[in-house]
Amino acid sequence: MVGGGPKAFIGAVHRVAARMSDRYELVASALCSDRTQARSFAQELGISRGYGTFEEMAEQEAVRTDGIQVVSIVTPNDSHHAIAKTFLEHGIHVICEKPVSTHLGHAVELAAIAREAGLIFAVTYTYSGYPMVRAMREIVLGRRLGAVRMINVEYVQGWLATNLEREGSKQASWRTDPARSGPGGCLGDIATHAFHLACFVSGLRAQSVCAELTSFVEGRRVDDNVQAMIRFEGQARANLWASQIAVGNDNNLNIRIFGEKGSLAWSQESPNHVQYALLGEAVQLLSRGTAASLAKPGLPAGHPEGYYEAFAQLYEDAADLIQAKVRGDAPESAGSLLPTVMDGIEGLRFVEAALSSARDGSVWRELDGSR
Amino acid sequence: MVGGGPKAFIGAVHRVAARMSDRYELVASALCSDRTQARSFAQELGISRGYGTFEEMAEQEAVRTDGIQVVSIVTPNDSHHAIAKTFLEHGIHVICEKPVSTHLGHAVELAAIAREAGLIFAVTYTYSGYPMVRAMREIVLGRRLGAVRMINVEYVQGWLATNLEREGSKQASWRTDPARSGPGGCLGDIATHAFHLACFVSGLRAQSVCAELTSFVEGRRVDDNVQAMIRFEGQARANLWASQIAVGNDNNLNIRIFGEKGSLAWSQESPNHVQYALLGEAVQLLSRGTAASLAKPGLPAGHPEGYYEAFAQLYEDAADLIQAKVRGDAPESAGSLLPTVMDGIEGLRFVEAALSSARDGSVWRELDGSR
Amino acid sequence: MVGGGPKAFIGAVHRVAARMSDRYELVASALCSDRTQARSFAQELGISRGYGTFEEMAEQEAVRTDGIQVVSIVTPNDSHHAIAKTFLEHGIHVICEKPVSTHLGHAVELAAIAREAGLIFAVTYTYSGYPMVRAMREIVLGRRLGAVRMINVEYVQGWLATNLEREGSKQASWRTDPARSGPGGCLGDIATHAFHLACFVSGLRAQSVCAELTSFVEGRRVDDNVQAMIRFEGQARANLWASQIAVGNDNNLNIRIFGEKGSLAWSQESPNHVQYALLGEAVQLLSRGTAASLAKPGLPAGHPEGYYEAFAQLYEDAADLIQAKVRGDAPESAGSLLPTVMDGIEGLRFVEAALSSARDGSVWRELDGSR
Amino acid sequence: MVGGGPKAFIGAVHRVAARMSDRYELVASALCSDRTQARSFAQELGISRGYGTFEEMAEQEAVRTDGIQVVSIVTPNDSHHAIAKTFLEHGIHVICEKPVSTHLGHAVELAAIAREAGLIFAVTYTYSGYPMVRAMREIVLGRRLGAVRMINVEYVQGWLATNLEREGSKQASWRTDPARSGPGGCLGDIATHAFHLACFVSGLRAQSVCAELTSFVEGRRVDDNVQAMIRFEGQARANLWASQIAVGNDNNLNIRIFGEKGSLAWSQESPNHVQYALLGEAVQLLSRGTAASLAKPGLPAGHPEGYYEAFAQLYEDAADLIQAKVRGDAPESAGSLLPTVMDGIEGLRFVEAALSSARDGSVWRELDGSR
Repeated sequence: MVGGGPKAFIGAVHRVAARMSDRYELVASALCSDRTQARSFAQELGISRGYGTFEEMAEQEAVRTDGIQVVSIVTPNDSHHAIAKTFLEHGIHVICEKPVSTHLGHAVELAAIAREAGLIFAVTYTYSGYPMVRAMREIVLGRRLGAVRMINVEYVQGWLATNLEREGSKQASWRTDPARSGPGGCLGDIATHAFHLACFVSGLRAQSVCAELTSFVEGRRVDDNVQAMIRFEGQARANLWASQIAVGNDNNLNIRIFGEKGSLAWSQESPNHVQYALLGEAVQLLSRGTAASLAKPGLPAGHPEGYYEAFAQLYEDAADLIQAKVRGDAPESAGSLLPTVMDGIEGLRFVEAALSSARDGSVWRELDGSR
Repeated sequence: MVGGGPKAFIGAVHRVAARMSDRYELVASALCSDRTQARSFAQELGISRGYGTFEEMAEQEAVRTDGIQVVSIVTPNDSHHAIAKTFLEHGIHVICEKPVSTHLGHAVELAAIAREAGLIFAVTYTYSGYPMVRAMREIVLGRRLGAVRMINVEYVQGWLATNLEREGSKQASWRTDPARSGPGGCLGDIATHAFHLACFVSGLRAQSVCAELTSFVEGRRVDDNVQAMIRFEGQARANLWASQIAVGNDNNLNIRIFGEKGSLAWSQESPNHVQYALLGEAVQLLSRGTAASLAKPGLPAGHPEGYYEAFAQLYEDAADLIQAKVRGDAPESAGSLLPTVMDGIEGLRFVEAALSSARDGSVWRELDGSR
Repeated sequence: MVGGGPKAFIGAVHRVAARMSDRYELVASALCSDRTQARSFAQELGISRGYGTFEEMAEQEAVRTDGIQVVSIVTPNDSHHAIAKTFLEHGIHVICEKPVSTHLGHAVELAAIAREAGLIFAVTYTYSGYPMVRAMREIVLGRRLGAVRMINVEYVQGWLATNLEREGSKQASWRTDPARSGPGGCLGDIATHAFHLACFVSGLRAQSVCAELTSFVEGRRVDDNVQAMIRFEGQARANLWASQIAVGNDNNLNIRIFGEKGSLAWSQESPNHVQYALLGEAVQLLSRGTAASLAKPGLPAGHPEGYYEAFAQLYEDAADLIQAKVRGDAPESAGSLLPTVMDGIEGLRFVEAALSSARDGSVWRELDGSR
Repeated sequence: MVGGGPKAFIGAVHRVAARMSDRYELVASALCSDRTQARSFAQELGISRGYGTFEEMAEQEAVRTDGIQVVSIVTPNDSHHAIAKTFLEHGIHVICEKPVSTHLGHAVELAAIAREAGLIFAVTYTYSGYPMVRAMREIVLGRRLGAVRMINVEYVQGWLATNLEREGSKQASWRTDPARSGPGGCLGDIATHAFHLACFVSGLRAQSVCAELTSFVEGRRVDDNVQAMIRFEGQARANLWASQIAVGNDNNLNIRIFGEKGSLAWSQESPNHVQYALLGEAVQLLSRGTAASLAKPGLPAGHPEGYYEAFAQLYEDAADLIQAKVRGDAPESAGSLLPTVMDGIEGLRFVEAALSSARDGSVWRELDGSR
């Protein structure tokens, strides 16, 4: 693991997720930029090989016979590219926190390196790990809603409704600093999760976006509210709303998807159920129990699962792919639901198009960057 | 009452609403365009003076000493203007179904006539009659959320997900016929309700709109899905989504409004509660009981009220205004929450701006019609 | 109408309900025990014949050619018997607030009088008027759940959690006075509604009850919390919990009914939906729309109905029965869902059995009074 | 770990829980009664010392310098006693699945052994590990509801609505076999969880119970539906309903607790929120965020936690106690919320009293076994 030092939030989540899946052993790390602290915190966590820097770690692990197979990158966004590149170049698979990079070009480069080297490059779009999200995808791809018409996806939080970054919040501070988080604030931080969810569930590619970005809190240097209308391939339309100033919301990611014959609705804060409606019929409440043929079973229905379990699913998926590689199975990712660097690239295209659209007064922008 | 014949939906609702408030007596009518049927159905309903045409009715009632004080207009949209004008010109107050007219110019004309004649011209934007909607408005106007930042309003239905108008549905047929319903389909029919709700609760005026209109059902002549981003005065932003192809939704009108210090959320299908969140505090569930100082009390909390009660509230408000007129109180509408022809005009401005925006590729359009 | 004076709650509800159904005209009344006030309030409400006493009213109406067909009795519980008896003896149909009487014997007597005279005696167990409650009954009686096994019914409120009766609350005062409300407090006031709901939905008769009654508030003279286990015919069991000290609850009446093959769940505060589960299938959310073949349609689904509409349904049913009488149709109540004096008698049997059970330390008591 | 073989459900849950807390290493096991399978499955799970029997394991681990500190017992109920006794006698701490034993006497014996030996004996009443359950306990014990009056607790499932045990379901089979599960069916299996939850949240001891037990499914040898009224110390009353024939319910454990001044409500299937009502105020929706001062923080609010996290909390608590022992801190369990063998004894007292009450026609039975 690179990153995930003493006060980091997401690093600890990755560690729990890896332990839950029981297919990883955390043996090497470079936990923070301070060499001494990196080593002492590794010791505290019982990690055998606590390196001072990620470069050191990549070099030495690459030559050990018992070196790591895969690295988790959980550092601030602006460092993802350099770290991932280093490990890929040393032949080590990568599980990277979202976003892949703060620049589209860098992400494209990483994808190329991984592809050539035949390495897994997973990106932890966590929410695609929820069983009911996967059940939705299966229903949509099984054409049970007919052609998709409309998607409404939201990711709204309220924790940045005031200027927390000035009050010394570490989490607020790096997320609202364009240098560290990338040019989009709320856009890059959470709208991309919503965007990925819409793509994942619908199985469709986004074509163009028309966006309005706002920074409501005085003195904030990045957007904290994102309104976007999206056109998907095949006539489908979407609304995407992401916000960090929506007081009263904790982590309200939700999606509704409507086709010719039916619809689905899911909310991350009640992740164990999906509302499923078919034309002219009563709305059904699917659970892991009643969507059993649809999703990989976990705990029996009624025993709630949550965020960690979704995260652990991604680690499970990555382990499957890596073991398939080891066994020489091909193609390695056939049928895998694990988000990869390709999803990361789509996410960055969305960010760039939305920024460009908003800058020019909400004109429609193609996701490939052309008008 | 003009309109509200044998199979009409909304006419019957108006009659129940008027009876509930107990301040109206239905004594004269022109219930449908067929003279004979108009008279026989009036007799069936026990209405004393069942006229064959509205012109006849206006003329004769105007000269009777016991003539009607106010007329309810519940005919198809394209006839509202002519009927309202006739009654206003005969000095009779008007309660008109939404929209005031299918043309902005006509609505402006009616407003002028009513103003000069000193007559009440109510428009039944039903949802503003709900007690909890009024409680929300009071909270917002009392600045308890601070300055409004973001509004998310939706009105989504699923009943037009297929081509019902071809299958002989009367309700579907006139609503999807531009000649009868006006140029906007879903836009004029329900998006305007959502728009009014946003204006009513926030107390703010909309300035410009950026819209995408879609007609998903093959062969449909009007839009059946409306996506709009709106800029309100004072920096506030809004998302408005209205749809008639959202399978699984009956009459899902809902609004969330976010200010600097708090937020409110309400849904028409659970109209007896409002979620009220203040920065850093637990979300509260307001009811008629706990918002008692805020809204006019009706039934005790826990005895659910619904659509009819909201409608009856508007009739109650109109009766208050008319009696104030009779008593000579001035100004007649001080403090009234009753929607009037002025709200109808705002609604039509929104329709025109949204149509224009969508036609030109989702450019921002001012509500006064200028770029 | 007898009762329903200036500050009465339920009298006003009856009046609205009768107006909504549009099949009643309120022409005569004895609105309160004070003669003068009875007359002046009648005038205020526009009632033509405002009598000073109910005896006067019964006598004079009985001899008029345009006399009332039916009387609504909305006085305090202890006066129901005398008033109902008087009107029945004058050949006038009765709609009586629940309970029929404070004594079982009196209720039996009234039933006999009504039966012999061939008169309607409706009792307003309001909650049986909700469309979704009727839909549940139809599902159960249609054997779609198989044999009923278990019922869980609750009616919990919080408004009497403190000693309101000492603070001068009129509503609290008569309800906690055994002389006026009858021997059961919470038991007679609301547990009987829950009991009726269980009987109505299941179509089963209760056989015995094992109860614990508590009076939690110091100084209160009647029970304010009712716990009861009930055995119904055919092996079915039930839990009934009624409370007036359940802080945080307004009017939380809810029922869940379980059979061999499925279950239903409904809550009065969200009355427009029913949860319907069948063995091994996803839970369905029935609405007036999707239970359309089951229940008499009202407003389109999605336009919420509530307490008044349920009440109006009972008035509608009573009007049907009375008109059938007038037409000479027989048997008058075939297929009617209207609760009558017979339901009132069952309710009083439940009250007596529960009181007796609790007094003797929660022994099982038959509803016919035998051990 | 003893038990938790190839198809066992709860053993796997314990393993995940221990890994999540990151304070345990699973180094020794006796995973099932078949010696060979016990060893091979241990190997499969990567457990270093896979014993063939628990006796062997206890003996050998007790003498190793790196022997286990604590054993998890996840075998069928009837074997808990013998296994726990053996490990305690070898000086090894115990984490035992509920129930401690199928006989009260055995449980009392185990408690005595543990106490004398100064060993931890944890019992995994899972639901007390949920953060919001602990928040409720803190509110109640902090007297914020005033004196507790009424508790309503339910644990209802539907999976045994048919005779699954005859169809070869392993889970159904042992749970409905009195020899393996103990004399109570639903009573011992899940009603005890509900009972513990009521005791844990209220901080009160139960005094007596009046119960009705039913076996609805033909041919079933144990109860599958439990109705109980309970009297707690200090005037508090409770309803407890547990069922395994409640079609449409997965694992619906929920509790509502009412005091003089307020109430709390929580449901296991939506475990991340608690409804908190105070007299005369709007109901509040507490989350991990807004109850932050009350409960130990986990993930940020809005990132749902579930069953595994609750389980892991108990493992965390046990690790705290064991480490305190190791350090010599005393008293070892001061302030711990971890359920122990003492809670297990209370649970068995409840089972015995309920069985006795039901057998004698729902008479009140003291929990100490006296009348």
